[in-house]
Amino acid sequence: MAREDARIARTRTDVARAALDVLTTDGWEGMTHAHLAQTAGYSKTTLYSHWPARADLVTLALDALPDMPHHRLTGDLATDLAGELHAFRGGVVDFSLDQVLMAMAQWGATVQEIAQIRTRIVSEGESVMRSLLEQVTQGDDLAAALSMLSGVVVCPALMYGDLPTDEVIDAAVQIVLRGASRSRRS
Amino acid sequence: MAREDARIARTRTDVARAALDVLTTDGWEGMTHAHLAQTAGYSKTTLYSHWPARADLVTLALDALPDMPHHRLTGDLATDLAGELHAFRGGVVDFSLDQVLMAMAQWGATVQEIAQIRTRIVSEGESVMRSLLEQVTQGDDLAAALSMLSGVVVCPALMYGDLPTDEVIDAAVQIVLRGASRSRRS
Repeated sequence: MAREDARIARTRTDVARAALDVLTTDGWEGMTHAHLAQTAGYSKTTLYSHWPARADLVTLALDALPDMPHHRLTGDLATDLAGELHAFRGGVVDFSLDQVLMAMAQWGATVQEIAQIRTRIVSEGESVMRSLLEQVTQGDDLAAALSMLSGVVVCPALMYGDLPTDEVIDAAVQIVLRGASRSRRS
Repeated sequence: MAREDARIARTRTDVARAALDVLTTDGWEGMTHAHLAQTAGYSKTTLYSHWPARADLVTLALDALPDMPHHRLTGDLATDLAGELHAFRGGVVDFSLDQVLMAMAQWGATVQEIAQIRTRIVSEGESVMRSLLEQVTQGDDLAAALSMLSGVVVCPALMYGDLPTDEVIDAAVQIVLRGASRSRRS
């Protein structure tokens, strides 16, 4: 039985890696049992028996997602906020975080398990940025600033299939630091 | 032949409306020939003969999209920026603009026709906000401010399946106006 368990665990690991690969390469449009079976080198029958729904395949892919990328903090707020945005942008380039976010948004609306994974991944992803912003703002300003800084990376990706330059990221950080710190003093 | 043309035009209108309905109700996951045929009340054969690929069905849905919602301008910059964001948020509620954006992002990456439609819809959608922001900023600051304000609506929708409150929208507008106007003077 131990050997059987090991075999199942290996299948799961193999298929999960392939699922993440399919999700980030072909988008979730490509996430079908047939395509994943081919990519992972397992039979469709095996896939259907363990993960009958397409949402199961997405869940599997999300399980294989590496930890969210973070910047190494320097103690300078502007540098650290920009660094976090560079790390986020890097995640879009390196493992298609934009595709991952869209897959989670699509399935999280109806599949409870994916909604929970989304909450965990998003919370972890924005945790550093949130702590940094809490140094200068709070409440509605904090919520706004957090969405705004994420938006600098997310919006060009979603709306233009493009990513912000370093200069645009720096501009965003400066706008938030000037706008939000001032609001705190007033 | 005129009667035949009219029949085809009517079919197209009917199916396009149904396609938009499917896209915004069920997401593009639901955009299959079988499901759309059932919703539109036409045969799958008819759908396949006119629109063989799923991307064709998405294109059709986007064609049926109403004009982007805009706020009636008052001349007060903060009020007008917040009004545009309320209109954008209303578009997410009323016709699932977030789903539409994600569908365009998914297919725009590979289907040239959808990429063009996306550029047109996004440009039109952000045109008013862009003009408003041009009153106080330009260059990288303008690009950042535009993404940031869109992000206030897009990020909660994408990351939490949620929408910003009026207070968070106001906070975002104030941060941008304080941050961006100051940068212009410096």
